[in-house]
Amino acid sequence: MKKLLLVAAATLSVLGASAQQELKGGAKGAPSIHNDNSVTFTIKAPEARQVRLHLDYTSDTTMTRLDDGTWTFTTAPLEPELYRYNFIVDGVKVNDMNNVYSIRDVSTVMNMFIIDGDKQPCLYSVTNVAHGTVSQVWYDSPTLGTKRRMSVYTPAGYEEGHTRYPVLYLLHGSGGDETAWLEHGRAAQIADNLIASGQAAPMIIVMPNGNVDENAAPGAAETGLVNPTFAHQKWMEGTFETSFSDIVNYVDSHFRTLKSKRNRAIAGLSMGGYHSLYISANNPSDYAYVGLFSAAVTPKQGVQSPVYDNLAEKLKVQFQQRPRLYWIGIGEDDFLYKDNAQFTRMLDKNRMKYTYVETKGGHEWRNWRIYLSQFLPLLFK
Amino acid sequence: MKKLLLVAAATLSVLGASAQQELKGGAKGAPSIHNDNSVTFTIKAPEARQVRLHLDYTSDTTMTRLDDGTWTFTTAPLEPELYRYNFIVDGVKVNDMNNVYSIRDVSTVMNMFIIDGDKQPCLYSVTNVAHGTVSQVWYDSPTLGTKRRMSVYTPAGYEEGHTRYPVLYLLHGSGGDETAWLEHGRAAQIADNLIASGQAAPMIIVMPNGNVDENAAPGAAETGLVNPTFAHQKWMEGTFETSFSDIVNYVDSHFRTLKSKRNRAIAGLSMGGYHSLYISANNPSDYAYVGLFSAAVTPKQGVQSPVYDNLAEKLKVQFQQRPRLYWIGIGEDDFLYKDNAQFTRMLDKNRMKYTYVETKGGHEWRNWRIYLSQFLPLLFK
Repeated sequence: MKKLLLVAAATLSVLGASAQQELKGGAKGAPSIHNDNSVTFTIKAPEARQVRLHLDYTSDTTMTRLDDGTWTFTTAPLEPELYRYNFIVDGVKVNDMNNVYSIRDVSTVMNMFIIDGDKQPCLYSVTNVAHGTVSQVWYDSPTLGTKRRMSVYTPAGYEEGHTRYPVLYLLHGSGGDETAWLEHGRAAQIADNLIASGQAAPMIIVMPNGNVDENAAPGAAETGLVNPTFAHQKWMEGTFETSFSDIVNYVDSHFRTLKSKRNRAIAGLSMGGYHSLYISANNPSDYAYVGLFSAAVTPKQGVQSPVYDNLAEKLKVQFQQRPRLYWIGIGEDDFLYKDNAQFTRMLDKNRMKYTYVETKGGHEWRNWRIYLSQFLPLLFK
Repeated sequence: MKKLLLVAAATLSVLGASAQQELKGGAKGAPSIHNDNSVTFTIKAPEARQVRLHLDYTSDTTMTRLDDGTWTFTTAPLEPELYRYNFIVDGVKVNDMNNVYSIRDVSTVMNMFIIDGDKQPCLYSVTNVAHGTVSQVWYDSPTLGTKRRMSVYTPAGYEEGHTRYPVLYLLHGSGGDETAWLEHGRAAQIADNLIASGQAAPMIIVMPNGNVDENAAPGAAETGLVNPTFAHQKWMEGTFETSFSDIVNYVDSHFRTLKSKRNRAIAGLSMGGYHSLYISANNPSDYAYVGLFSAAVTPKQGVQSPVYDNLAEKLKVQFQQRPRLYWIGIGEDDFLYKDNAQFTRMLDKNRMKYTYVETKGGHEWRNWRIYLSQFLPLLFK
């Protein structure tokens, strides 16, 4: 009997070890995500002298060489989140050729993976729910005298009926374009998951391109397959804000929208928060919901535009009309923390009501996905 | 005076040299495309012992090391085409971290660039014309009992009016999914350019996912960020063909289509050509235009499905109804050349009229882009 127990114990121990090695959901991807949310990275580079792993939210690590020339590293269990990474092989930054999933940030492409929660998938994962449609639409901008591209999310069911929907205008930062909220921001997955669970109202989400000197994201415009650049000639100088009505007019005339103020929201990250702040302040009757995610709030030095004049008075008018939500989110390490603190003090002083969310972390997509996930359920209720 | 002439000559020669170094269209991308369509590739890898370049349609080349540790290679002038490439650094295949543009083929991601023509951009480039909308749409498939994703191109102007449009169903091969014709195939750019120049009729192009055991492309389905695989459990065994009417029904009820046979085309590459062949043969009253691009024509060994039974009789009925176009394209080096030759002999024997285009090259995207570019102008005229 004792022998039998020993065998059973040995079996259990083996099963335990094997369970830990097993891949989450049976998915054979690269990197390998284990059941405990630890992750194993591998790259075969027999001739390399050193291979390092660069992984979001962690310090760079030297990987271990196995006899067959494979380099490997297994992390501690990771929090549910979207992570980016790449390898540094003998000083050369390279991507993981065994992982087809990547995200671009300006001119940097990095591999990505998602850690789901223990009991339920992360909001950023595609789940088995009804999915909205994502379209790349070219709209006419009479103010800018050109056609420009934007991304539009219409919720599941949009194509089936005649229902009209509220609209969220969701704006990217200075490193982004009309693809940023879809790729880095996982906006379609967040919206799908929150709408399907009843936490968010079905809505149209419009993601335009906030760089007025480009008609579309790099590669999608007639400028060809150019190397994307962070620098734009026209940048936070008022043109995007003054041409924004072209976007609203196009959306209201080409989609089944609810056109009233209480069915219109505007939010954005960093430069997009700046755009949201000034567009809503200059059009106090247009947006019942405003979201400033790590927003730039102060105009660039030397910029002259009526868009940025008399902000305090404009806000006074805007808040007299009582926005249903004025939402401000900022990370405690964000380089814009101080500017946001000054801005909220000004709002306080003028008894302007807003919702304030302070998180850990800095000026980063992790926060912007969290802010969007918190913001969507507050809209159109 | 002689001296002056010499100076002028020297200046011209310097200008000539500099012109050759200058980048096409002033675009500073990576790789650098020169005015004469030669291309310079570079990668900085100071510690590497050997770096090789792998470039579509050429043999692998060893690159040259410069003093600063940059490896470089300049090609001869290249033909207008879309090219893929990567580097092999000390035996490790890596992508160009200075080029953000890439294409996935099953589980292989490679960098890409496009060489435009001398006088006009290549059909595959985004040009300054009106652009159609590209949507990722989830449709209901009652036959398969699931929601599935497809890509839909609606031509420029679709959103503006009430016009109804003809439809091309454009099917991918066994390595692809609903993104293949957009990414590898540049279908939206080809359609934009041909429609804008009046060479093709404005049309809707529907690109479904032909792998019935996946609901959407890898990463877009609830299976998560899995490593894409070439192998599918259900594969050319009749299920896609028998469920195809779900797609047509969805498109006809959700888009402004012209529903008659003469306004409906079906075409595809490899497995998609096989699907086009059998779907059109089983539904002889549905498609006036059929395109078989490097098509598989013979059912897999051992497959039993009424879809593939009695092909000769089905074709007889189909050709009695006189399709307006039955277009067959094949490369002389294609491994399916012999099968296609047998198939066309069978058509000849039965006096079934078709258009036959034989090109250089094999079973490759270069050919399928060319075939699509030749096929579109023949439709709906």
